[in-house]
Amino acid sequence: MLSKARIKYLNALRLLKYRQEEGLFIAEGVKLINEALKSSFDVLEIFATREWIEAGYIPAGRYLVDVNEISEDELGKITALSTPNQVLAVIRQPQSQPAPPAAGEWVIALDQIRDPGNLGTMIRTADWFGIDRIVASKGSVELWNPKVVQASMGSVFRMPFHTVNLTDYLAENRKTVPVFGTLLEGEMLGSGPLGKQGIVIIGNESHGISAEVMPFITSRITIPAARQGRGDTAESLNASIAMSILCYEIRRQNPSGKA
Amino acid sequence: MLSKARIKYLNALRLLKYRQEEGLFIAEGVKLINEALKSSFDVLEIFATREWIEAGYIPAGRYLVDVNEISEDELGKITALSTPNQVLAVIRQPQSQPAPPAAGEWVIALDQIRDPGNLGTMIRTADWFGIDRIVASKGSVELWNPKVVQASMGSVFRMPFHTVNLTDYLAENRKTVPVFGTLLEGEMLGSGPLGKQGIVIIGNESHGISAEVMPFITSRITIPAARQGRGDTAESLNASIAMSILCYEIRRQNPSGKA
Repeated sequence: MLSKARIKYLNALRLLKYRQEEGLFIAEGVKLINEALKSSFDVLEIFATREWIEAGYIPAGRYLVDVNEISEDELGKITALSTPNQVLAVIRQPQSQPAPPAAGEWVIALDQIRDPGNLGTMIRTADWFGIDRIVASKGSVELWNPKVVQASMGSVFRMPFHTVNLTDYLAENRKTVPVFGTLLEGEMLGSGPLGKQGIVIIGNESHGISAEVMPFITSRITIPAARQGRGDTAESLNASIAMSILCYEIRRQNPSGKA
Repeated sequence: MLSKARIKYLNALRLLKYRQEEGLFIAEGVKLINEALKSSFDVLEIFATREWIEAGYIPAGRYLVDVNEISEDELGKITALSTPNQVLAVIRQPQSQPAPPAAGEWVIALDQIRDPGNLGTMIRTADWFGIDRIVASKGSVELWNPKVVQASMGSVFRMPFHTVNLTDYLAENRKTVPVFGTLLEGEMLGSGPLGKQGIVIIGNESHGISAEVMPFITSRITIPAARQGRGDTAESLNASIAMSILCYEIRRQNPSGKA
């Protein structure tokens, strides 16, 4: 049985202000909660239907979980999904670690990514391709936004992610690793080797790479398009599409498990 | 001055039923309407603020356009955008042509794509890479859905697109061109030549390639992932991400203007 106060509290966690105050976030659905329970994240409270509880998803050794059985109706009052899916959890935001230096790694650096669905998709895609970590500028959408968490399909529980002062981060790391920027003019992606490590900057959905980040690019690259022979084409690619193509090319050139 | 009846009519065109009855659709915003006006589509009516009208976006020779000056307030009553952008147009749906055979072309075949944002992004991406055409199964989201039109960023006015009986289309064309399907097991994408033409099937967001389409695949391919060395990774890629990576690899292997 869910009190009105509890419903209000859970819904408040959809707002950045309350998430920051509480240091918590919400995830929903059978698949996502399975990923959370397998991860090292602190899952504090679970609200689930009898169906979910009886299915026995909670691994042995997960002692900290407080499980509340609720009805479908009650789930309807706390879900943000159009099709609620059995379970919702309150999870502790891990302490944000300082981003380690990028030497020997492939890092995706997000410059003012604003769309939560885009960010979630980027985290899922970087996870698929085994990118070592993601760093995001302070102006990017918050990682614990429910739409980011859901769109990541659980990859948010695996992917190392750090919010950084991006220009400081690039200033520090460009001494040791190449910094790639995708621009309309540059070396054609796929025409030569990218190397064994690097930082790849992905710019804002509307404005691309910001003016203060631009000077840190050491390698300008272009995604091949069909500009000849059929007149105009699309002027640009979606930010998460551009990122995925770069991740694919990194993985294609570095096919071992470690990128 | 917009009458109540006119506002109702324009809002009704956001619904599939009325779009089909009228054979019309709606597009919005300065960039998208510029693309529409440059295209061969019949732009029947424009509703725009004085700012847009005075900017002179309508090309010489575009005689069929009926331009209605409206206020920002009135635009707010007919827009579907959270940030209305000066102009909205009613455009005629082109007659759907029968899909020509695929010989000599690269074709993306969409199998039950349901998310309008995904479809719009796919059209934009296919346009960027110079894919020759898109065919979509009858169960896919409708092309003239406002979210598809907006997410395509104008590529909907350029990209040849046909709704087809997908199994019939594949049965006909697999005799002459390879039919690629992206699966979790298959030849690693990027490890060998794809050839000069083909059909690439992209499956549904949740369920992948459908059972009735599966037998038509002649080349099973896999997008390389980082499965070793770091435990679990994402189980799958978003459908539009998978499509974009295939388009990139096609273009990388066929760098001339014509894919």
